[in-house]
Amino acid sequence: MWTQREIVLEPRPRGLHLVTGEVTGALPELRGVRAGLLHLLLQHTSASLTLNENASPDVRRDLRTWLDAAVPEDFAWTHTLEGADDMPAHVKATLTGPELTLPVRDGRLALGTWQGITLCEHRDRGGARRIVATLWGEPG
Amino acid sequence: MWTQREIVLEPRPRGLHLVTGEVTGALPELRGVRAGLLHLLLQHTSASLTLNENASPDVRRDLRTWLDAAVPEDFAWTHTLEGADDMPAHVKATLTGPELTLPVRDGRLALGTWQGITLCEHRDRGGARRIVATLWGEPG
Amino acid sequence: MWTQREIVLEPRPRGLHLVTGEVTGALPELRGVRAGLLHLLLQHTSASLTLNENASPDVRRDLRTWLDAAVPEDFAWTHTLEGADDMPAHVKATLTGPELTLPVRDGRLALGTWQGITLCEHRDRGGARRIVATLWGEPG
Repeated sequence: MWTQREIVLEPRPRGLHLVTGEVTGALPELRGVRAGLLHLLLQHTSASLTLNENASPDVRRDLRTWLDAAVPEDFAWTHTLEGADDMPAHVKATLTGPELTLPVRDGRLALGTWQGITLCEHRDRGGARRIVATLWGEPG
Repeated sequence: MWTQREIVLEPRPRGLHLVTGEVTGALPELRGVRAGLLHLLLQHTSASLTLNENASPDVRRDLRTWLDAAVPEDFAWTHTLEGADDMPAHVKATLTGPELTLPVRDGRLALGTWQGITLCEHRDRGGARRIVATLWGEPG
Repeated sequence: MWTQREIVLEPRPRGLHLVTGEVTGALPELRGVRAGLLHLLLQHTSASLTLNENASPDVRRDLRTWLDAAVPEDFAWTHTLEGADDMPAHVKATLTGPELTLPVRDGRLALGTWQGITLCEHRDRGGARRIVATLWGEPG
C-alpha cells in the first residue's frame, strides 16, 4: 500500500515551527495503516525538518538562538549574492537535515510524547515550503 | 513482511554508548530477511541515535567532548527549569538526530566494518530510553 | 520490488562533492519504479551523505569552510593516532549523517530543483567510499 503526495506548508517567519497537524491533516490515508512508515522530504536546501520538543515554545526559541550563534551571518562566506541569511541557512539545513522517516502504528504516527514534526525555517522570508510525503505499510 | 516492536534501552550515563547488540538481540526476525530495511526511532528529544566508530572508545569520548564544548551549559538559554543539562541536550539531539534507517542483507544489518549503532545520551540522568523498531523486507 | 546493491564511489579529495549522477547511474532499476523510495547508507564514519545545493560550487566550499572552523584539527582530541584530520572527520560525519532516504516518483528521484546528493569527504585522503543502496516500491 503506497501513498505519495506533495504537501505545501504555508509560509512562516524565520524560526522553528511545529507542523505535525498540518502534515498529518494532509494524509487521511494514515488512519488505514496498521504498521508502516511515513517518509517526508523537504525539497529545499535552506530549511529543514526535525523532531523536536512539542510543548515549550522556549525550547524552539533557544534552538534558534544557538543555531544563529553557531552559524553567524558575519563569517568568511563567499556565497553572499542571495542575502546575508542565505549561506547560514544552507549550513543550518545541512546540520539538521531535510528528511524524516517516522513509524506508523494503528493508524497514527508512533512518536514520543514530547516529539513533534518541526519545520526549521532558516531564511527571513523562505516562502511556502514543499514536502514530498511517502506512506507505505500494512493495511489493517 | 513487517515487524514493529518497542525496544527499551537500559539507563546509561551521559555519553555515547554502543547499542548494536542490544538492538539486534531484540529483533530475532532480522535473520529471516533476505533484503530489507530496519528503521529505528528514539522517542525522545534529549538523546539521539547515530552510527559511529565501533572500536575505539576514545572516539566516542572525543565526540562527547566536542559536543559539550560546542553546546555549553553556560549559554543564553531561557529554558532552564529542567536543569543545566536539559537545553544543551535538546540542541545536541537535534544536531545528531533521533532516527536511523539501516539496510538488512541476508539476515544481518549491512553496516560498514567500523559502524555501530550509538545511543547519544545527552542528559546526566536520562533514564531508560525507548525505541520503536520497524523491520520490513523480502523474506529469504 | 526490492533492489539492493553496493555502489563504490571513486576517491575524492577533502570537500563536498555532488554524486547524484554517479549514484543514479548505478541504479537503472529506478526507471521501473512508479512510487517508492531509495535508501543510501555510506558505510564509513569519516565521510557523510547529505542533500545540498546542486548549482553553486561556492555553497559547497562555504559549507566546508564552516565545518573546518567549527570542528578544528587543533582541539583537545585524544584520538590522534590516525592523523590530525581523522577525529574532526568523525565529528563532521556525525553532524551531517551517513544515510539518506529519497522519494522515487515515475522512475526518477523526486528531489527539489536545487537538491543534489552530496558526498562530504572529511578526510584528506579518504579513498573510495562504499554505499549500500536499497530501492523498493511499486512498479509501473
